[in-house]
Order: sequence, then C-alpha cells, then structure tokens
Amino acid sequence: MFTVDQNEKLILVTNDDGIHTGGLRALEEVASAFGKVVVVAPKEGQSGMAHAITVKTPIRVNKLSETANSIHYSTNGTPVDCVKMAMNRLLPRKPDLLLAGINHGGNASSSVIYSGTMAATIEACLYGIPSIGLSLLNFSKEADFSVAKQITHQIIKETIAKGIPKGVCLNVNIPALPKNVIKGIKICRQNHGVWREEFEHRTDPSGYDYYWLTGTFEDMEPQSNETDEWALRNNYVSIVPVQFDLTAYKFMDELKKWDL
Amino acid sequence: MFTVDQNEKLILVTNDDGIHTGGLRALEEVASAFGKVVVVAPKEGQSGMAHAITVKTPIRVNKLSETANSIHYSTNGTPVDCVKMAMNRLLPRKPDLLLAGINHGGNASSSVIYSGTMAATIEACLYGIPSIGLSLLNFSKEADFSVAKQITHQIIKETIAKGIPKGVCLNVNIPALPKNVIKGIKICRQNHGVWREEFEHRTDPSGYDYYWLTGTFEDMEPQSNETDEWALRNNYVSIVPVQFDLTAYKFMDELKKWDL
Repeated sequence: MFTVDQNEKLILVTNDDGIHTGGLRALEEVASAFGKVVVVAPKEGQSGMAHAITVKTPIRVNKLSETANSIHYSTNGTPVDCVKMAMNRLLPRKPDLLLAGINHGGNASSSVIYSGTMAATIEACLYGIPSIGLSLLNFSKEADFSVAKQITHQIIKETIAKGIPKGVCLNVNIPALPKNVIKGIKICRQNHGVWREEFEHRTDPSGYDYYWLTGTFEDMEPQSNETDEWALRNNYVSIVPVQFDLTAYKFMDELKKWDL
Repeated sequence: MFTVDQNEKLILVTNDDGIHTGGLRALEEVASAFGKVVVVAPKEGQSGMAHAITVKTPIRVNKLSETANSIHYSTNGTPVDCVKMAMNRLLPRKPDLLLAGINHGGNASSSVIYSGTMAATIEACLYGIPSIGLSLLNFSKEADFSVAKQITHQIIKETIAKGIPKGVCLNVNIPALPKNVIKGIKICRQNHGVWREEFEHRTDPSGYDYYWLTGTFEDMEPQSNETDEWALRNNYVSIVPVQFDLTAYKFMDELKKWDL
C-alpha cells in the first residue's frame, strides 16, 4: 500500500498527452528518484485543452495501480481537472512538487497559452506548489526521451535545492537532439510569436463542409537572442520562469486618462 | 447581402455562453451602433473552456442569418476556435474590433485563466486586433443587461477614440447593480486570488462514483484597493488591461544563478 512519510517528497505527475504515453513514463521514472509519485493524468490525449476545466459533465476517476512507491489514476478530465482532483480528493497531503509532461512536442513562445501541460503547471502553481512543465520538441509517439530524462533530473535537483518563489513555475523545452549537440540550458523570456492558422476544408460523405485546424508558427522577433524560440533554434534547452498575472502594467497610466 | 466599406468599422462579436444568450444579443446591439457586425459564436455554452482549441475533431460552421448589417455564424468549436475561424475563413477582412461577451458571470481575478470569453479576447489580441472582453456579475440566463449595455457603449466609444496598443486587450467586469449604485469605472490590476475547489461526490445508478467540480473564490489580498476584486466589491466597474507575456521577469536573474 502506498504511504509517504513527512520526510519523503510527494511528487504529483500529470500531462496532457494521456496516461499511456512515453513522455509520462519517462517523467515518472525521473521523479521516482526524488520521492513517492502519484500520477493523475487524462485517460486520453488532451492536447490544446489549455486551462479548460470540466463543468458540464462529471469527472470520473480510475485507480489503475498502487504500489508502496506510486499510485496511478486516470480521469476523463482535462489536465487542469487532474490537478484539481489530485489536490482535493486523491493526494494524501499537499505535494512537494508538480511535474507535467514530458510533452510530446514543444510548448515555447505563445504555445504556452494553448498547452494543457503548462496549464496543469500553472494550476499547481496557483495552489502554491513548486511546479515544472517539460516538453520535448518531438511530436512522435515513439519519441526518444533518454536525453530529456537526464536534463529533467538536473532541473528537478536544482529546483529542490534552490526553490522557486510562490507564484512562479518553470516552462522547460528540450530540443530533440543528441546530448553532445545540446549546448546547455538557457534562462529565457517568452518569445513573441503567433500561430498562423489555416483551416483545411473538407467535405464529408453526406456533402457537408468541415474544417481541420492546422497552422505554422511565426517568430515575431527572430533577431532577439533572449527568447525561448531563439534558444531552441540554437540547440539550447530553454527555461522560462512563468507567472500568471496578465495585467499590462505599462498601459495602466494611459488607460486612467481615458474619459470613462 | 452583407457588405462593409473601408470607411465602416467591421466588428467581430463572440462569447463563451453560446450564440443564443441574452449577453451576446446585448453586446451585438451595442456593437451595431459602431459598425457592421459579424457574430461567430459557439452553438452551445463553452464556459470554462479557457484557451482550448479543437484539434481532435473537425470544426463545423453554420450560417444562421445574413442581412446588410450583420451575419451570424455558430460553430461546434471553442471561443478561441471561433476567433480563428472568423479570422481565417469567415470575415471579409481583418476586423477593427473584437468584442467578447457579455458574459453571464464575472471574469475578474484569476478567473481570467479559465474564461473562454477572455481567451477569445486574448486570441484576437494576438492577431493584433483591439479587443475587449466584457462580463456581468450575474450568472442567470435571464440577467438584465440594460445597465451593462450603457457601460459597454461608453467603453467601446473610448477604445475607438483613444486606441489600445498592440498586445494589450481589456478585461471589463460590470457589477449587476442599478446604474445609480455603480460608482464609476476603475482601472485595476488583476487580483491575486484562487478558486478553492471541492468535488461533490455522487454515485450513478450503476453504483459508480462521479464528481462535480464546485468551488468558492478566495481573494488573497482583500486589503488592496488596486485590484479588480476590490473595485467590484465596492460597486465599481473594473477594467484590467491584459497582456499575454507570462514571463516572470523578476525571477530571471535568480534563475540564471542556478547550477544548470
């Protein structure tokens, strides 16, 4: 039966690609070196669900396994639902660390807004838990996480040693490259970039139109060497410290002059 | 047939409560005083969908009506999908303004993270469109939007007159109070607050467990008079200027000292 002592770390692991993915297994393996692990993850892929919460349908939880060192739960909810459910119903106590990922595919620049992985990370951060979201720049189901695991280990070790202030979490993106090609880890700011969408038009067998969302990313400041996009393009691992106050402070004084 | 001249304003209207709601109708009525209106909204309620995008199922679009001054489309997508679809497939040109709402229920403080209304607003802002998300602090389907309409008119008028810098949009929350009780409009920062969730446990007729997400909001800084929560509690309309760079700049120097 799963137990966790007060002197042991309790680590919550989740993702948005679903519980049966290589990225989640890789992250769990790394996490287990630092403490007891509870996995609460969507039963299926929830990519692009961002910070969505489930309010119109009930949440179901399945306990898939339990050992002395780990428990696995899947839910029909979003990544944020998984964090909320873990915090409120499933964990024996407040966790010492939240790890989300390792995502199959990057979450740099404005992708942080659409990412379920980073939403789960931010949600745990709102609860005051040190939180790290991790992504590998390889969308393949069969992606190789061996290098990403080493880097993840290093980042978790430093996070535990140094600590993250409340209200801040980390967005880690790892290039899908051999270890000796990766130049190091770079602390970055979020790149200013946008997804240029196109909707691919098709017609169903009954003659009705439908559309698939597709898109390509555009870096709006390719010349800057301070951004996560630049770091990744230049074979660095990027870490962006993330917070969730969206206030545009610089525009407040101007706005106060409006005739309202 | 719908047409829009270059000297006329083209206004995109959406929401997250669904196309058949009083708040959307109220917003469209106000918008029509400023230009031609295209409504692209979810066919059903999408509350809590945040910045979710639909990648696993195709998007369908229905044109519900078209006059010389307005067109109405519904989609099976999220609020962000609606904005993307409008920008890429449905609008005759880039709109001059995006209005989202009027939401049935508030979106102040950290609720901005879960809100489909504010996600649509931020999405349009990413496209470089002046964008305003509006919410009335009344969840009722039969909410009275008459006062909210007057305030919305005033804010749109000033937005068009003064302009918003690219990368900034507005989060407007309106107390559900008579006009003479509302003290005015206050420019605020996003309150630091959290939702304290509880999952209500039930058992289905087959004996299986399920949970409904419920919660209460907690203001983490009730003493501050600079926040949207304070303004609303004190009978002001709140406007928070919003941007989408999540970088925690203040923590960057510290993070650069880590042994990574």
